[in-house]
Amino acid sequence: MRKIGKNSIEFENVFLRATSTVAGPKESKGPLGKYFDVHFNDSHCGQENWEQAEIKMQQMAIDLVLEKAGLNMKNIDAMVGGDLNNQLAITNYALRAYDAPYLGVFAACSTCTESLIVASNLIDAGYGENVVTITSSHNSTSERQFRYPTEYGGQKPNSMTSTTTGAGSCIVSRVPSSIKIIRATLGKIVDPELSDSQDMGRTMAPAAASTLVTHLQDFNITTDEYDLILTGDLSKYGSDIFEKIVNNVGIMRTDNFNDAGLMLYDIEKQHVFAGGSGCGCVTLVTLSYVINALRIGIYHKVLIIATGALMNPIMVAQNETIPAIAHAIALERSFE
Amino acid sequence: MRKIGKNSIEFENVFLRATSTVAGPKESKGPLGKYFDVHFNDSHCGQENWEQAEIKMQQMAIDLVLEKAGLNMKNIDAMVGGDLNNQLAITNYALRAYDAPYLGVFAACSTCTESLIVASNLIDAGYGENVVTITSSHNSTSERQFRYPTEYGGQKPNSMTSTTTGAGSCIVSRVPSSIKIIRATLGKIVDPELSDSQDMGRTMAPAAASTLVTHLQDFNITTDEYDLILTGDLSKYGSDIFEKIVNNVGIMRTDNFNDAGLMLYDIEKQHVFAGGSGCGCVTLVTLSYVINALRIGIYHKVLIIATGALMNPIMVAQNETIPAIAHAIALERSFE
Repeated sequence: MRKIGKNSIEFENVFLRATSTVAGPKESKGPLGKYFDVHFNDSHCGQENWEQAEIKMQQMAIDLVLEKAGLNMKNIDAMVGGDLNNQLAITNYALRAYDAPYLGVFAACSTCTESLIVASNLIDAGYGENVVTITSSHNSTSERQFRYPTEYGGQKPNSMTSTTTGAGSCIVSRVPSSIKIIRATLGKIVDPELSDSQDMGRTMAPAAASTLVTHLQDFNITTDEYDLILTGDLSKYGSDIFEKIVNNVGIMRTDNFNDAGLMLYDIEKQHVFAGGSGCGCVTLVTLSYVINALRIGIYHKVLIIATGALMNPIMVAQNETIPAIAHAIALERSFE
Repeated sequence: MRKIGKNSIEFENVFLRATSTVAGPKESKGPLGKYFDVHFNDSHCGQENWEQAEIKMQQMAIDLVLEKAGLNMKNIDAMVGGDLNNQLAITNYALRAYDAPYLGVFAACSTCTESLIVASNLIDAGYGENVVTITSSHNSTSERQFRYPTEYGGQKPNSMTSTTTGAGSCIVSRVPSSIKIIRATLGKIVDPELSDSQDMGRTMAPAAASTLVTHLQDFNITTDEYDLILTGDLSKYGSDIFEKIVNNVGIMRTDNFNDAGLMLYDIEKQHVFAGGSGCGCVTLVTLSYVINALRIGIYHKVLIIATGALMNPIMVAQNETIPAIAHAIALERSFE
């Protein structure tokens, strides 16, 4: 690997050897439902509480990705991952079951791409052959932690997004396969000085725009380079602002833009307000639908810009604004 | 860099170009007080609340490490760091002030060494020249978040540790300097099935032992290899158990062991119960006293095993036990 431009990396030999997705009930019923590997009909996933449900989803995703790749834990050199729970609790507890070293990372919903960047870095630098990434979110663990007790039934504004229930896992490998991780751009903190924790899409849009602009400059390319530029998850209002910001700096072609939070649900019918959000959202969309489209040749090259609103309830209660970050990776269809 | 053995890395060209430490009042009055760069007499550090105080400590540490190295942010290729606050809030807010990409990592008190490992990976793999790491903890932000409101004045058992108020920053660089980062061993989750959140030292001891044993096996060395094997932070009770565990697996020489939580305070006189803890503890001890001893030749090679109890109050309330992790790095005096 080598550094390109200001904040970017060009990888040499990093592949997505296998991916897996485990989806909650609302996600399974959405427009991408058929692309997921595992579907749950209820958000408890047969467990006693929501935390245990999210742990189970992570473990199912890991077990499945190993099975798909024909590997077992002896072949795994490290695991990288995280979730939205304080202290990355779900990932910490899920990974008790696996005998491999683990690096916990956090960038809110951008944890998905941060995990892939750290894993790709390990692989391309010569640390072993296979690194597992794991990320997830769960609507009910997030609601309780970041907002109000679910039982309270608090009303929500239209700008609110709905946290996805889902987990996804990858095997990042030096062994050639049909999808290559070719590039990354590391995000920096961008704070648009908004403080509405019920409007995260607009809070994250400037961070997504900053990362996209840096990516295009670093590699000296235009948005034509990619068949899809997927943000995750800006939602309806955030996506509008994102497009306006990038138009303002001269990026005119945006018909290849889409947002994971808008793709995962039928936002007219599924009661998700402005769209989906959470680590699990961009994870589910990328590791199922997008990967499939790359495999069968609908897409040849895509850019995933996962966006994280770094919201902490204590800081918001102290009248702070909400900083955001967006880490990007580019995937390419490869002919082994 | 290359992978060694099961979970370890040998770095080629990674140096600690500069380090800085900012200490709270109790830490400044402790036995290592004279080694810190900045001392605060009160834990508010002139700010309105404890979160802002911890943010200020991080920013002072970063500004100082840049100054010591004669660098400015244009020379910095990335920042890696974290803290104990939910969502890494302190680091997220502190880094708003710096124009560089940022990877947030979390491993509780082991965040210090995880940051150094991720930064060393970036540097040794060819991503730029200088990466800043930043880690901190603050007694009062931690007490409120993990335990009880400070005003409540809850009584504590002797097994309790006291969270350190302090921050430290490093410049990890490919430019040769007097201290080299030579090795790392990535930790895995170890859960000794304890659930007492007021006895973290004993919870973390098996994780520290697991990482030490793996490190020695991976590099085919004994504890004689190092002038100091520093754990951080097992405290009095945790250190006892740690020594017993490693004795049981045949590691007999332990007179070169010490624990950051026992070194930072006078535990007889300073009311810290079983010793210090928190990201800031192993950070302050390593980046001041240990670095100084390497620079002046008291030590030639040291191993830092930072240990994290991955305690989440919700999981403990649900009757879960507390998993732990320990990431290690080895530092060597180098003659540029």
